Amino acid sequence: MTRGQNTRGQNNRGRLIAIEGIDGAGKSTQAQLLADGLGAIHTFQFGATPVGALLRDILLDPANVNLDDKTELLLILADKAQHVSEIVEPALNGGTHVVVDRFGASTLAYQGYGRGLDLDVLAKMTLFSTGGLEPDITILLDIDLDMRSKRLGDNLDRLEQAEVACDSGPESGADTFISQVRNGYLELAAADPERWIVVDASGNSADIAATVLQHVKDRLSL
Amino acid sequence: MTRGQNTRGQNNRGRLIAIEGIDGAGKSTQAQLLADGLGAIHTFQFGATPVGALLRDILLDPANVNLDDKTELLLILADKAQHVSEIVEPALNGGTHVVVDRFGASTLAYQGYGRGLDLDVLAKMTLFSTGGLEPDITILLDIDLDMRSKRLGDNLDRLEQAEVACDSGPESGADTFISQVRNGYLELAAADPERWIVVDASGNSADIAATVLQHVKDRLSL
Repeated sequence: MTRGQNTRGQNNRGRLIAIEGIDGAGKSTQAQLLADGLGAIHTFQFGATPVGALLRDILLDPANVNLDDKTELLLILADKAQHVSEIVEPALNGGTHVVVDRFGASTLAYQGYGRGLDLDVLAKMTLFSTGGLEPDITILLDIDLDMRSKRLGDNLDRLEQAEVACDSGPESGADTFISQVRNGYLELAAADPERWIVVDASGNSADIAATVLQHVKDRLSL
Repeated sequence: MTRGQNTRGQNNRGRLIAIEGIDGAGKSTQAQLLADGLGAIHTFQFGATPVGALLRDILLDPANVNLDDKTELLLILADKAQHVSEIVEPALNGGTHVVVDRFGASTLAYQGYGRGLDLDVLAKMTLFSTGGLEPDITILLDIDLDMRSKRLGDNLDRLEQAEVACDSGPESGADTFISQVRNGYLELAAADPERWIVVDASGNSADIAATVLQHVKDRLSL
């Protein structure tokens, strides 16, 4: 058995494919198209479970301006733990492939590379939250910051407002945080090429979907 | 500077006193009486901040029967992180003593000794959540399980229901979980006598309060 074929060593187990990238990269659309192409279920972090939806409301509510960075991280990890135990693991154990819009790498990219929390601590806590589960393959949908601005409106949630607030110095500008997140993703992908695929996500949706589906089928021998 | 005098090395900083013990030990009453006696603020984990109150609702709602153990832990830690950053640290930094009804040791006792999560991992994650803050002194209000049953009614919240459900085997009985928690507390206290004081909490409230106040004043030279 190679790692790409099955991370948990059971032959009838489904595969877990994560779609990652900054907001505006088209993760949700591509996750759905990939799930359709594979006959997989499509789910997401965060907010996919009833408890997760309550946590998502807390995390995104602009009223919670004084949310501590560590609180934010722990709520995101709580959502992951519940999502894995309630949705992801039961599907994989039942032999169904799962495409998830964001998984552990989002935490490293946003809270680590973005917010500056310790990457080793984050990696350990993220693995704790998923019970050791990691994606068989992760697709990074990469766009630059100009494309992100073009695709996103003015409708910022609390996390995005915080990004702007944190980075409002005249030198750094509002894009510093998200630029760090993007570079973090690219570093993570470069460090583990066997389990990451970087896809240019600036083109049209159907072309990107075809590229992603082909990569996943090739890599996982599906 | 001795550790008991000031854990963070600033002379004008307040002291942090934690009150621990199983439900029914009288923590809330004793925390208030101690705070009155010291001119300290009285606060509690979990649910003391607005975000914490939302998390407490999730944790205690009997509808959330399928809450994963790891989710539960991460929500408890999120409450701690927010509580420390929003209430405890500002008070200590302002020179005010703080009496807190439950702190990090509750997590070790309930999620570690009670639920069986790894104690080392728990200790590290708890320290992460508090930003490294530990109590100057912890009072363990100790009662046996008969006294607990006498003092508590039938009004069990989700955590207590889970305890009963987990321990419903004919051999173990419903008291196994809480017995493990109590023994865990006693082990923690025995392992660090310089920072723990065990008080028999089966007597009357005024006597216990006088004992606790005297211990704290002696130990912290207040």
